[in-house]
Amino acid sequence: MSMSAKKKKILIVVMDGLGDRGCRQLNGLTPLQATETPNLDWFTANGIAGTCDTVDIGIRPGSDTSHLSLLGYDPLEVYTGRGPFEAAGIGLIGKRGDVAFRCNFATCDENLNILDRRAGRIDKPDTTELVRSLNGMVIDGIEAIIKEGTEHRAALILRGSGLSPEVTDADSHDKGPFTGSKGKIPEADFTANVINKFVRESNKILKDHPVNKRRIKEGLLPANVILPRGAGSFPKIDPFPEKYGLKAACVAGVGMIKGICGVCGLDVIDLPADCTGGCSSNFISKARTALETLNEYDFVLMNVKAPDVAGHDGDPMLKCSIVKRLDEMAGYLKDNFREDLVIVFTADHSTPCSLGDHSGDPVPLTVYTPGNVRDDAVKFSESGCAHGRIGRIRGKYIVPMCLDLAERAEKFGA
Amino acid sequence: MSMSAKKKKILIVVMDGLGDRGCRQLNGLTPLQATETPNLDWFTANGIAGTCDTVDIGIRPGSDTSHLSLLGYDPLEVYTGRGPFEAAGIGLIGKRGDVAFRCNFATCDENLNILDRRAGRIDKPDTTELVRSLNGMVIDGIEAIIKEGTEHRAALILRGSGLSPEVTDADSHDKGPFTGSKGKIPEADFTANVINKFVRESNKILKDHPVNKRRIKEGLLPANVILPRGAGSFPKIDPFPEKYGLKAACVAGVGMIKGICGVCGLDVIDLPADCTGGCSSNFISKARTALETLNEYDFVLMNVKAPDVAGHDGDPMLKCSIVKRLDEMAGYLKDNFREDLVIVFTADHSTPCSLGDHSGDPVPLTVYTPGNVRDDAVKFSESGCAHGRIGRIRGKYIVPMCLDLAERAEKFGA
Repeated sequence: MSMSAKKKKILIVVMDGLGDRGCRQLNGLTPLQATETPNLDWFTANGIAGTCDTVDIGIRPGSDTSHLSLLGYDPLEVYTGRGPFEAAGIGLIGKRGDVAFRCNFATCDENLNILDRRAGRIDKPDTTELVRSLNGMVIDGIEAIIKEGTEHRAALILRGSGLSPEVTDADSHDKGPFTGSKGKIPEADFTANVINKFVRESNKILKDHPVNKRRIKEGLLPANVILPRGAGSFPKIDPFPEKYGLKAACVAGVGMIKGICGVCGLDVIDLPADCTGGCSSNFISKARTALETLNEYDFVLMNVKAPDVAGHDGDPMLKCSIVKRLDEMAGYLKDNFREDLVIVFTADHSTPCSLGDHSGDPVPLTVYTPGNVRDDAVKFSESGCAHGRIGRIRGKYIVPMCLDLAERAEKFGA
Repeated sequence: MSMSAKKKKILIVVMDGLGDRGCRQLNGLTPLQATETPNLDWFTANGIAGTCDTVDIGIRPGSDTSHLSLLGYDPLEVYTGRGPFEAAGIGLIGKRGDVAFRCNFATCDENLNILDRRAGRIDKPDTTELVRSLNGMVIDGIEAIIKEGTEHRAALILRGSGLSPEVTDADSHDKGPFTGSKGKIPEADFTANVINKFVRESNKILKDHPVNKRRIKEGLLPANVILPRGAGSFPKIDPFPEKYGLKAACVAGVGMIKGICGVCGLDVIDLPADCTGGCSSNFISKARTALETLNEYDFVLMNVKAPDVAGHDGDPMLKCSIVKRLDEMAGYLKDNFREDLVIVFTADHSTPCSLGDHSGDPVPLTVYTPGNVRDDAVKFSESGCAHGRIGRIRGKYIVPMCLDLAERAEKFGA
């Protein structure tokens, strides 16, 4: 049998924010330690296990940097700032040379004094309508492309020649006078000037917009200016399918994850309506979609957002109930296992309930494929996986390790 | 007592291709897991253990790249391609500026159409005699040095000024017309031209060679052309004895391993006739040679090829029987242990029986010297060594770790 005939497929199941610390409400255990997870444990007992620092030891990863790692990139090399990845996260994917920004819809007076940085937490559909009136703007030969995100958030791409990401925020992060962006280096003065003109121009267009007139009438704050911050170039990322020779897709509900995967060249799969990206999402429906996607693809990254939400909410009992449902999802994947699959269960980062935010704690990692070594780890948890033979690795090694197990790695040497 | 009086010696026992995956025939265990190894376990229980990625996580090493790592070099920095290391492997060690190639003896018709890329798997002594007629060739001021390897294989060194390794193979890897080498960059056109002249000249010399006339008469394919491929420069490798301050030798039966060690400046020790490099080799005789060599040397790398052969053959039962004999060899080393020795048991890479080829799975690693820490690992296997305090390390760290245990490491700082 030739090597190529044996090539396996790869599924990485990312249980977002799954890692935790000891919870008082759980007698000092983590939700994973406190919950029975027979199916995740089955994969652990029959596979190999370890712990994973998605970026590096002690680094608190964002969802963007951690997913870059899980896709085999080193975010310390390719991550160019939040602007381009937030833009990508809402579907605004730029090109080399573009500079991208995170933006807020804000409220200002007639002298550009900022009164509210979030325009009363305005949301869609108002922002969608406001954005429509802004697009198509060209300033000093630079095209401005803007798209609304969640609530008061938006992303901006500047496109044209002579741009630099080395500019300060046009957002003072406080109330008070509009201070404007400045170049951090002389070559960036042009870009800072374009941004400042964009801010003033946005105010001119938005201040008398019918949406804002209606909001004022309803006692809501008008969104009459856009404040860009977090400038970054679009990174030079070797497309994942070419880098690894894998036809690759992502199965995720959250915009930012889809954006990251899109930037890396993965196809973003449409989800059934019951896969919402929230706590009530149907995990089994998502797992079914992932398995179906593997019929057409060599590699699937699947993200389940719910445990992260429970961690941010600081709710250990909710997180335990989600762990229980994640284990049922693992049971579905076990019952419907295809023999030519390398499957990975892990998280992008920990989101301890006691913290209500991401932490740098390493996450549990289990890799199973028929015919591999069994090691001595038997329980899928922060502590249980540490008994496995994978040891403690960085997230960027997961894809190379899976390529080897999938019999797709090239030999280095003779 | 001064530091220098306590300096220890170092023996690295490389059990080639020893790591494995679960074998169906062994109820999902690896040969190491399925075989009783009381002596290897004794070293593990009384020493420190871990797992080792000889090159890096997920990388499938060749024997050349992995042995460079085990000698403390980073193959990602020093490995320059197969040509020079295959040449070294058959004892043809070049100099800086040389370009080396792997070659096949092949069969062609009168128009240089390749009929058989292996000349009917010709072997010594025919190839030895044919090589004798080729050596001494000078083409456009470039000296061509050729040596036969196993079966139809040979190595070629080009020596002279103006050479570049940036040339394509002169071997199309298929039957059909001789396509010739081309420069990948303009500066390499001269080298490509020399290679193509060498190929034609080899055909002129070989086609009417008495060995080939005899072969044709006997119904065998004539070896009437040489096809070079895998061009590479000789790497700049700091000699091991100077780099580490160790008088160093290798005890190995396989040509490629001897070649690698030779390139790195180790003395290559002659073996007793019963050390064949095959499955029937006398491992205890080889271990005795290694211990004797340590009377004269500070450092010995010893390679036992047999487990790799069993892995390539896909034969778990054979591999188990070899593991049993390797353990007896470990028993001999235990019974004849010299107190001033740091001993390492590991592998250069895994060769899973289910794969029949090298894989990137990490290999077990045990290091023992009297007076060192004991850790909690007790079983020498892919899973058992993962319990040890060495953790998961890259191969290039083994020599520095041993230097420290041998009380030969320089202090860094005050």
